[in-house]
Amino acid sequence: MKEHRVGIIMNGVTGRMGTNQHLIRSICAIRNEGGLQVSPDEVIMPDPILVGRNENKLQKLAEMTGITNYTTDLNKCLADDQYQIYFDSQTTNLRAEGVRKAIAAKKAIYCEKPTSADLATAVALYEEATAAGLKNGVVQDKLWLPGLLKLQDLIKTGFFGEILSVRGEFGYWVYEGENEPLQRPSWNYRKDEGGGIIIDMLCHWRYMIDNIFGKVKSISNLGATHVRTRWDENGQPYEADTDDSAYSTMELENGVIVHINSSWCVRPRRDDLLVLQVDGTRGSAYAGLRKCLVQPRQVTPREVWNPDVDRTKNLYEDWMEVPETRNYDNAFKIQWELFLRHVVLDEPFRWNLLEGAKGVQLAELALASWAERRWLDIPSIG
Amino acid sequence: MKEHRVGIIMNGVTGRMGTNQHLIRSICAIRNEGGLQVSPDEVIMPDPILVGRNENKLQKLAEMTGITNYTTDLNKCLADDQYQIYFDSQTTNLRAEGVRKAIAAKKAIYCEKPTSADLATAVALYEEATAAGLKNGVVQDKLWLPGLLKLQDLIKTGFFGEILSVRGEFGYWVYEGENEPLQRPSWNYRKDEGGGIIIDMLCHWRYMIDNIFGKVKSISNLGATHVRTRWDENGQPYEADTDDSAYSTMELENGVIVHINSSWCVRPRRDDLLVLQVDGTRGSAYAGLRKCLVQPRQVTPREVWNPDVDRTKNLYEDWMEVPETRNYDNAFKIQWELFLRHVVLDEPFRWNLLEGAKGVQLAELALASWAERRWLDIPSIG
Amino acid sequence: MKEHRVGIIMNGVTGRMGTNQHLIRSICAIRNEGGLQVSPDEVIMPDPILVGRNENKLQKLAEMTGITNYTTDLNKCLADDQYQIYFDSQTTNLRAEGVRKAIAAKKAIYCEKPTSADLATAVALYEEATAAGLKNGVVQDKLWLPGLLKLQDLIKTGFFGEILSVRGEFGYWVYEGENEPLQRPSWNYRKDEGGGIIIDMLCHWRYMIDNIFGKVKSISNLGATHVRTRWDENGQPYEADTDDSAYSTMELENGVIVHINSSWCVRPRRDDLLVLQVDGTRGSAYAGLRKCLVQPRQVTPREVWNPDVDRTKNLYEDWMEVPETRNYDNAFKIQWELFLRHVVLDEPFRWNLLEGAKGVQLAELALASWAERRWLDIPSIG
Amino acid sequence: MKEHRVGIIMNGVTGRMGTNQHLIRSICAIRNEGGLQVSPDEVIMPDPILVGRNENKLQKLAEMTGITNYTTDLNKCLADDQYQIYFDSQTTNLRAEGVRKAIAAKKAIYCEKPTSADLATAVALYEEATAAGLKNGVVQDKLWLPGLLKLQDLIKTGFFGEILSVRGEFGYWVYEGENEPLQRPSWNYRKDEGGGIIIDMLCHWRYMIDNIFGKVKSISNLGATHVRTRWDENGQPYEADTDDSAYSTMELENGVIVHINSSWCVRPRRDDLLVLQVDGTRGSAYAGLRKCLVQPRQVTPREVWNPDVDRTKNLYEDWMEVPETRNYDNAFKIQWELFLRHVVLDEPFRWNLLEGAKGVQLAELALASWAERRWLDIPSIG
Repeated sequence: MKEHRVGIIMNGVTGRMGTNQHLIRSICAIRNEGGLQVSPDEVIMPDPILVGRNENKLQKLAEMTGITNYTTDLNKCLADDQYQIYFDSQTTNLRAEGVRKAIAAKKAIYCEKPTSADLATAVALYEEATAAGLKNGVVQDKLWLPGLLKLQDLIKTGFFGEILSVRGEFGYWVYEGENEPLQRPSWNYRKDEGGGIIIDMLCHWRYMIDNIFGKVKSISNLGATHVRTRWDENGQPYEADTDDSAYSTMELENGVIVHINSSWCVRPRRDDLLVLQVDGTRGSAYAGLRKCLVQPRQVTPREVWNPDVDRTKNLYEDWMEVPETRNYDNAFKIQWELFLRHVVLDEPFRWNLLEGAKGVQLAELALASWAERRWLDIPSIG
Repeated sequence: MKEHRVGIIMNGVTGRMGTNQHLIRSICAIRNEGGLQVSPDEVIMPDPILVGRNENKLQKLAEMTGITNYTTDLNKCLADDQYQIYFDSQTTNLRAEGVRKAIAAKKAIYCEKPTSADLATAVALYEEATAAGLKNGVVQDKLWLPGLLKLQDLIKTGFFGEILSVRGEFGYWVYEGENEPLQRPSWNYRKDEGGGIIIDMLCHWRYMIDNIFGKVKSISNLGATHVRTRWDENGQPYEADTDDSAYSTMELENGVIVHINSSWCVRPRRDDLLVLQVDGTRGSAYAGLRKCLVQPRQVTPREVWNPDVDRTKNLYEDWMEVPETRNYDNAFKIQWELFLRHVVLDEPFRWNLLEGAKGVQLAELALASWAERRWLDIPSIG
Repeated sequence: MKEHRVGIIMNGVTGRMGTNQHLIRSICAIRNEGGLQVSPDEVIMPDPILVGRNENKLQKLAEMTGITNYTTDLNKCLADDQYQIYFDSQTTNLRAEGVRKAIAAKKAIYCEKPTSADLATAVALYEEATAAGLKNGVVQDKLWLPGLLKLQDLIKTGFFGEILSVRGEFGYWVYEGENEPLQRPSWNYRKDEGGGIIIDMLCHWRYMIDNIFGKVKSISNLGATHVRTRWDENGQPYEADTDDSAYSTMELENGVIVHINSSWCVRPRRDDLLVLQVDGTRGSAYAGLRKCLVQPRQVTPREVWNPDVDRTKNLYEDWMEVPETRNYDNAFKIQWELFLRHVVLDEPFRWNLLEGAKGVQLAELALASWAERRWLDIPSIG
Repeated sequence: MKEHRVGIIMNGVTGRMGTNQHLIRSICAIRNEGGLQVSPDEVIMPDPILVGRNENKLQKLAEMTGITNYTTDLNKCLADDQYQIYFDSQTTNLRAEGVRKAIAAKKAIYCEKPTSADLATAVALYEEATAAGLKNGVVQDKLWLPGLLKLQDLIKTGFFGEILSVRGEFGYWVYEGENEPLQRPSWNYRKDEGGGIIIDMLCHWRYMIDNIFGKVKSISNLGATHVRTRWDENGQPYEADTDDSAYSTMELENGVIVHINSSWCVRPRRDDLLVLQVDGTRGSAYAGLRKCLVQPRQVTPREVWNPDVDRTKNLYEDWMEVPETRNYDNAFKIQWELFLRHVVLDEPFRWNLLEGAKGVQLAELALASWAERRWLDIPSIG
């Protein structure tokens, strides 16, 4: 069995997402399966080194995961030829510096979104990596969520006829922190620490829409800071000074209309924390993170407005679940495997730094639309 | 028993809403209960005459309802002093002419919404009726839907703490008419016949929001004609040339944000054809036409994003139904009774032609916002 | 209101089908609705006379239905110009004689199936009626069963993609008559009285298939007399000497394969007495007399053969019911109305005596296929 | 405890059925139970060696099952006297060669069906094994499915009176492979790789019918390739060139009629992937893989044709489930145990190579019937 060893500098994996999704459920999982099988006789074996600023945290993480290689010296790692890939899941404001060092060191680049808090930097990172001839990619995990994969299958098989509109509802109630402990870090609600739901989620909506429903043409967005006082990790109250909700309407080039409400101040009465309702001429679908339901036009009921009697027919019964026709692996792991194949086997990989920059662009325009109180078109970039 | 007989000219009740809601479920229902009891010794007894242009239809309606008084001669009715109230549920483009004749004849005015297709006329009708010293009112039935009454009770008792946002979803799939017979008349999808969902529904949203959640301050609205070909009552295809969907974001003076999707091209996966989700600092509610559910902050679950396993907890189970604490009469009938008391007993009645004009105003601004692609503020009128 | 009175000679309506379906649920029902409304100002009013051989039965039927016109003298009726239509639901072996008399009397012809027990006569009746320039029709009621109408709508909207196959199961257990009274007349099980399930049901399958799925090209049929001893209406045993079950495989010109089991000796475990399962590339449907269920390809489950554990998933749950989008009238009445419009308004009516003859043809070839133990092609006729 | 050790050469058990049913659920299961107890003091202990062509696969299988004996050298095994039984579950076209080597080596023969793709070879294998005086058997697992065992019990106790007919429905939708991964290997849809539903399933129907309902006398069969394009294990489209559906009508010597539809292109609305409905004069039964339901004549409802109202009575409620009166072991294991007793204790075993050849015969005649478009009788063989 031929083994392609791939050294990976994992910078910033002591954070929640870095630890759980990238390290444990992706890289460790691939290692535990004996590497990524790419032909009957070949595997790709990722060989990570954990990089961070806090040695204690690194040590704990090493113990927990069995990845015994770790360091606080990023520069030394970058200088080491046994590492081909630089992965960055630091907080956003540290990302550009880390990525640029890696470009200088001629590593392939893979990083979390948003790639930067501003579009200019995001585009520059793409151009610099490309100019240096380096392979690069950005995490776009939602594309591989089972619910959204099922939605993509429905589109491929022509289920919808012409798609008319997409309604999204994202979010849940994030505890203020006074009575119940936070379930998201407090920096999310502070502007100068890179917080805000618009910069966080609009990046996701960009690649999700572009890849599944059609290219985004223009956006009208309203942000809000609904909950103004929160309590931090130490139980201290502070003023939330950035958006915790966004109401975003978008037009696509193909005429489809997408409206998404994103909020950390909503108590969901729906199937999942993210749901997408897609209505088409020949049928509709309702996708959550893992499940997807459909209603073909042939079973669409004849509804009429009658508020004088209680409903006898439950509208939820008009939907059928799309079955699981294959095993659904972790979405982050799937994209990691695609990136490893891209690096080792030179297979195509289209989710690159330019695509990542597009997410930043949409977030930036959403903020501008809010400020200017009008629709804004999305210029093409790159 | 003292009986206050009130003669009512009912113009245009051969239409679906006029027949079902105003004549049968309101006026006939009041008559069948022996009139509207207003004190132990007094009843108000409505005494309608049906007015229309097609004698055959009027005759059939008379037979069906037992209201044997009918005529095609509106002018003669208006000249007759035994009628104190003029009610108009004609199609919108005939309304102003009818109302003006009734003003000239010094009748109290009650009419369906929209009072006109344009704001100038709608305001003029209010001013003319007021100048003539006539009592007047406009149908705003949704305020008395059981689900919305329960919502108003929740607000009154301080359930929500501070209200943050309101999400509305209105609509259902209206058959195109090719394979299944229409469940709404084809004129709704023709611009020059007064069709369009914006003029139809935004009138409702104005009084609903103003009365329940706070004064509307500004609006950003996107309309769409999702289904372009429909089939009419004779099975003939035609081009739908007016909006069948609207995506409306509104800011209220008190800072609450309201977003409502209205559509005749959506296959609902929700509790009812209209649902309103209201999120507040101390709790949330989810109201349909008749039911209302709540989730107080104390039972709000700790949700975290975990797409790697199927949900084990159903989010629908976090909600409790508000019980029925009284009988809920037909919403139209309730408002009719309030108007009859206003006319006979001089009790206050605030849902007048000016309030009706505000609905037209919101629809008009929504159309303008769509055209100009920006937010528009709502000027005060009247 | 202009009334087109249409005199109808109803010969043989004292039988079960004639009384229930043709007289009570069709002609009387149309009369009770005030005639068949064909424009705002016109109705067609059927005016029947009941004809039979047993005066007592006719009198009873007249009392029951309020149709007071009856006679045992067919010839006199035929000579009377006030009757334009001759309808025949006598037993099959009397049909040709009755129809021929009516042709001689220049009546429009409408009759039950089979139009004859042999193809030559069936075709001759068509040719004679046509040569005489007379409008004519044959009952093909199953086309207007709600379940089959829904199936036709599914085909029209392209639900199936390419239809691959149709499986039909018709029948139920007809009591032998020894312990429980018969629920079908004993002549059905006697060859010389026109009995047999092949001549009865294959006539239906011909028009059902031709009109809904495609032209029948060839047939392989096996008949059987499973229950050999039955008891008649007087409790006397007799030998059943004709087929009570048929196993029919058919190929259509478009390549679709249809297999139908028809039997009076089966205890059904299915949704209805007649069910049709249609499988297509994009979805399947399962229709009964009134209901129709669908399974689009997108919800088709991943089934694998595993006999080692009890099923945890119920296969019945993979189906959704097609909603009722309109009122479904009696199938016989619908066809009567179409025939009345054909006679009075000259509207097209394609279910004529030639179509009836095709049903006889399929039955005849099915019997021949059984005898010759091979596939037979269907020659074109007429 | 006396242990009869029986060495078994298991050739071709790296395939799905070989691994799951024969190795894990039969041989390993018997070993895990401490061998097959045949008297208070005696057990038969099967001692297998795994044989195949791919050493990697064998090694994995060995690790998975704990059967550490494996080899790619069949000839060496055959030469080894410690092995008494040769078992073959290779693909069909390799079977004859393997079996003949085993005959030459004087092993008892046990093998999967079909024993060959052509009748001549299948009969020859029987004759050669018999001439050599060797015990032999063929897998006929469906006879020991719990549902069919219950059916056999019903027959034994006279439940049916005279059996009239048997209707079978076998199959489910096998994904084309474009959008969903295959759940059956692609060779099943390629003629030159031994694919086709007729050769696969008619072998089963032969022994099932012969053993349970009566000897098959003649057959009329129609095959079809409904789905013409499929996608293989690598996602490449290919043309399916062999039958994926069969419509088979059979007459038995005792007059019973059996009709079975077998298809990989059907979306089942029934209780199980294989169901058999058996109708008899005194009752009917409906058997799936594990469950069996009955309707005795005494509860057979009086059904009449009435399409004018929705069914109020559910036909599924007229059936009662046959209880589980014993534990049902894996069907393959039961037959293995019988064969082991045959080899060691000389007990009778009637499911031999001749019986296997009869299955091939029925498949061959079914193909011929399809080609010649007529009924064919089944000659006796052996």
